[in-house]
Amino acid sequence: MKIKATLLTIGDEILIGQIVDTNSAFIAKQLNTIGIEVEEIISVQDEMNHIIEAFERGISKSDIVIVTGGLGPTKDDKTKVALCQFLDCELIQEPKILENIVQLFQTRGYTKELNSLNQDQALIPEKSTFIQNKYGTAPCLWTTINDKIIINLPGVPFEMKGLMRDEIIQRLQNQFQSETIVHRDILISGIPESDLAILLEDWENNLPEFIHLAYLPNRTSIDLRFSAFGTDKEFLQNEIQHQINQFKLIAGEFLVSENSGNAQQILGDILKEKGLTISTAESCTGGNIASLITSVSGSSAYYFGTIVSYDTSVKVNLLNVNQSDIDEFTVVSEQVAEQMAKGVRNQLKTDISISTTGVAGPNKGEDGKEVGTVWISITNGHSTWNKKYFYPYLDREDFIKIVSNNALNLAIQFVREEC
Amino acid sequence: MKIKATLLTIGDEILIGQIVDTNSAFIAKQLNTIGIEVEEIISVQDEMNHIIEAFERGISKSDIVIVTGGLGPTKDDKTKVALCQFLDCELIQEPKILENIVQLFQTRGYTKELNSLNQDQALIPEKSTFIQNKYGTAPCLWTTINDKIIINLPGVPFEMKGLMRDEIIQRLQNQFQSETIVHRDILISGIPESDLAILLEDWENNLPEFIHLAYLPNRTSIDLRFSAFGTDKEFLQNEIQHQINQFKLIAGEFLVSENSGNAQQILGDILKEKGLTISTAESCTGGNIASLITSVSGSSAYYFGTIVSYDTSVKVNLLNVNQSDIDEFTVVSEQVAEQMAKGVRNQLKTDISISTTGVAGPNKGEDGKEVGTVWISITNGHSTWNKKYFYPYLDREDFIKIVSNNALNLAIQFVREEC
Repeated sequence: MKIKATLLTIGDEILIGQIVDTNSAFIAKQLNTIGIEVEEIISVQDEMNHIIEAFERGISKSDIVIVTGGLGPTKDDKTKVALCQFLDCELIQEPKILENIVQLFQTRGYTKELNSLNQDQALIPEKSTFIQNKYGTAPCLWTTINDKIIINLPGVPFEMKGLMRDEIIQRLQNQFQSETIVHRDILISGIPESDLAILLEDWENNLPEFIHLAYLPNRTSIDLRFSAFGTDKEFLQNEIQHQINQFKLIAGEFLVSENSGNAQQILGDILKEKGLTISTAESCTGGNIASLITSVSGSSAYYFGTIVSYDTSVKVNLLNVNQSDIDEFTVVSEQVAEQMAKGVRNQLKTDISISTTGVAGPNKGEDGKEVGTVWISITNGHSTWNKKYFYPYLDREDFIKIVSNNALNLAIQFVREEC
Repeated sequence: MKIKATLLTIGDEILIGQIVDTNSAFIAKQLNTIGIEVEEIISVQDEMNHIIEAFERGISKSDIVIVTGGLGPTKDDKTKVALCQFLDCELIQEPKILENIVQLFQTRGYTKELNSLNQDQALIPEKSTFIQNKYGTAPCLWTTINDKIIINLPGVPFEMKGLMRDEIIQRLQNQFQSETIVHRDILISGIPESDLAILLEDWENNLPEFIHLAYLPNRTSIDLRFSAFGTDKEFLQNEIQHQINQFKLIAGEFLVSENSGNAQQILGDILKEKGLTISTAESCTGGNIASLITSVSGSSAYYFGTIVSYDTSVKVNLLNVNQSDIDEFTVVSEQVAEQMAKGVRNQLKTDISISTTGVAGPNKGEDGKEVGTVWISITNGHSTWNKKYFYPYLDREDFIKIVSNNALNLAIQFVREEC
């Protein structure tokens, strides 16, 4: 049986664009691991009637409604009152929640008395039950409506994540016998999306009904996602592998990785497999490549570090780039990129190193280079690859993101072919 | 008159948690600048009936529905067909869109003929008009329904952003005489959220009706957001400033900045004002602080760079940390943090430097230090601040985020008090 969920986030900060809703992605991923499908994500303002209407919508469409936000102690937090109105009941005080708040304050070193707003955090709708929140003052609310559930979680990400992992997933798994969902991504490069789709047309049309295919194009590659629904996880995994083997017969030359996901994870896996270490020298990407590589748990086994040389003096003094080459070719040049890569490899003593130098914009570089120009260099001491890209239309944020991703993908290819 | 918008994102990748919906935050922010309020953000699967139902919902609640995603050439892209069904009309070919695609392919160096899927991208619902997309093959669709509008944009962020900036905002401004919305955030520290709310209660209750107040608590600080709605922007700005002056009389001692937003922006402004330069030495934050600082356009004026010393050898060789202190106190210690900060300041020759060393987890550090322990050090050569934090509950991602933010906030305070 398919179990369906609606995710509801409450808070003006999302609707004015001040905050990106990362909570929903986390919750959706967690639910998928236990076979629960998210049918809709909806964000509404801190307004009573909007919140109540969203409860109604969620509960009418889905088996589970997971709500984040609006449980704080201040006037702009209205979720609990809205829930009472929706359930047609009153708020009652739960002494055990009060005890939890007192204990939490003690741990944090607050000695003062609880104020009235802290005490109000122990109020819950009388038709709801609660789950203690050891990470914060707002409890999780668990409300059963016939055979459906509304779960209210605090919007603070680390509190929400802690509750999901410690409590919610296990409880949902106990309550619902759900189907299994298996996702797997493979990474394709070197063919435009539409050409790939035409090449795959017959095969795609003949995919079994329980496998769903999606094309996720990036700037220089395509993620092809297989999603399978059923009861037997191993069977689904085998079926997807079988289809990937079929895919390889048709378009294997364009396959970069059989287990995509993200480039930093793939790069890490290959480096570990080959026992190689890596370092980076970043200019225009400003530390973002380092950030991506170190976002992988266990990366300290192969990643030594980065030198971000935002100022030219750092390129010359720490990375040993020739001042005369900077004068002749500018900092955004093949010569400088290559010397940066070689310089950081010598300084940090790694097998491989990557460098980036470019103009992220919005203003032209100091030497008048066009916004969007970038050189990436990769070296292992014997071979060196230098590659130029030009992205004039990207804003600063996307430029950094895409250049970083290109650098990681180029490194994957380099390690495969040259190491 | 208040003009309201619904944002609709289409794509399974959001509902399975593979992708965080950053498009909606961007669009919401842009709409706010021209006084359009986003009432709801909704994400649905690539399923015909879900998409059509979401069109209906959006158009019944809002004046404007902005839709992203599902315009690609592959089978999983269903938005255009759903729009036709919703509008009860057929798809027709637009030769000018075809010309745009041909031209785009030429620019990209593709010489091959357009395949049938490329040609289908020039099909649009006959009741819609289009806006050329110079960034990609899918045009923007603009559909008028009585006095309301549905706008379809490609889901690829840089295409969507380009179209919003170049075309959509201006057209919406021409069509709708909307109210003005002004947001302003101030940064508060040193008082728990609930105590602040009680301290501010009288003042908050007496705020004029057109000013809305929101509390956005972070781990170590609170953003207080003022939102004002009306017709006269200058009047609204003055009214908010007047209320901030009142706030200062009540709780001025807790005010960190009158113009919050983000710490990297505030730090950059103070450094520029004081003519100071800064560098960083990062271990557990892995380049994230560098990434945040360089995300600010113009940061090259004060930011020289970072040395990310993920491997201990880099701490010793490049940052001149004493091996004997590492042996005695471990890499996660006050001694090492301070030497890292001093080391990078000497190497990069900046006025100030920040360092971080800690255990991001999920596994314990090499020396057995508990996950969640971190030292931050800041120095200007004369004064040095070392501060310890302990976040045992955070996952790797949140740990890095919060430590980076703490480092930036500490740096703001340091520059204010010591420089």
